[in-house]
Amino acid sequence: MRKEKLNELKLYINELKTINYKINEDSKKNFIQIIPYLYTLNNGRIIPREKLLKNGLDGSAVMIAPYDTKKNEFLVNIEPRVFTKFGVAVSFPAGYIERNESAVEAASRELREETGFVAKKYIHLDSYYQDEGISSAYNHSFLALDIMKKYNQDLGENEIVKYMFLSLEELLEVEKMGYLSGGNTKLTLCKIKDYLRR
Amino acid sequence: MRKEKLNELKLYINELKTINYKINEDSKKNFIQIIPYLYTLNNGRIIPREKLLKNGLDGSAVMIAPYDTKKNEFLVNIEPRVFTKFGVAVSFPAGYIERNESAVEAASRELREETGFVAKKYIHLDSYYQDEGISSAYNHSFLALDIMKKYNQDLGENEIVKYMFLSLEELLEVEKMGYLSGGNTKLTLCKIKDYLRR
Repeated sequence: MRKEKLNELKLYINELKTINYKINEDSKKNFIQIIPYLYTLNNGRIIPREKLLKNGLDGSAVMIAPYDTKKNEFLVNIEPRVFTKFGVAVSFPAGYIERNESAVEAASRELREETGFVAKKYIHLDSYYQDEGISSAYNHSFLALDIMKKYNQDLGENEIVKYMFLSLEELLEVEKMGYLSGGNTKLTLCKIKDYLRR
Repeated sequence: MRKEKLNELKLYINELKTINYKINEDSKKNFIQIIPYLYTLNNGRIIPREKLLKNGLDGSAVMIAPYDTKKNEFLVNIEPRVFTKFGVAVSFPAGYIERNESAVEAASRELREETGFVAKKYIHLDSYYQDEGISSAYNHSFLALDIMKKYNQDLGENEIVKYMFLSLEELLEVEKMGYLSGGNTKLTLCKIKDYLRR
């Protein structure tokens, strides 16, 4: 891995790592909601299942792997992931699909908001359930081609996103180092490798 | 795909599909809990995050891809997945890691409980966060070799598991048909392909 890339990554990780945390006693706004159901199956069995919602929606998300053809590099986010080992993780840009929004529209919006980049072409890599036992969240991963920096970042109130460019080999190294550790990013990366082999 | 395998799959799907569902008004036992936190980052920002727990634990799970060398086939589960498109999905055997249990111990226990099979050898394929924005659940996928049917199924009260054997090619077909649709199973399958290429 190029030394300057490793230094850039370590800089972001140091900046975004957790130094302290506590229970939020004043939490009013619940991002996550749980609804208990009883399902009757065709074989007569009745089973209880709890369904997770995020902000009242099913939590379906998009993930975008932006690829710069000239540099031969992928854009990745570095974000505080407070529940993970390092408190910070490398992932592809991603976000929730909003009401009345298609997956590609969400991908285009999330890429622009999180990085200021736009892409001319979106290639669908795969679709998959986030956590099928407790949620109907159905995610979509895209490869974004012909990307161009056109806007400033436009982040939500509690969203913190740094981004950088890494080659495929460097991405796989970052995965081995444990910084790229989310299931969705790993699946997207694995499907990119499949796609490039075709 | 072999016709008898497709028929077997369709039989299970028909048996386990949802015919009716309603809100569970009497739900007392909450499988899912949400805890709100405030995290202070090294750069001074304070961000709220909600953490999801399952039965009081972080929800870390194992997934096992049992491979029968003689048949050249993988064992897969067919389970009611009431929140998915078909209401039923194909996945590898999987389950939550219990308190004071290692990942391999959990893999061995879950394989035995869900299918009655035991394996002599577990090969670690990958580890990954289930949903890193809202959970510290860290999952582990294994390839299980030298498998043998030794016990009866030993299922939980609300657990329904059918299983069958499919070749790798048939598994990829089932994935294309949309029946194998969970992120964890897809990642495990993708990593198996990586492993076989080595």
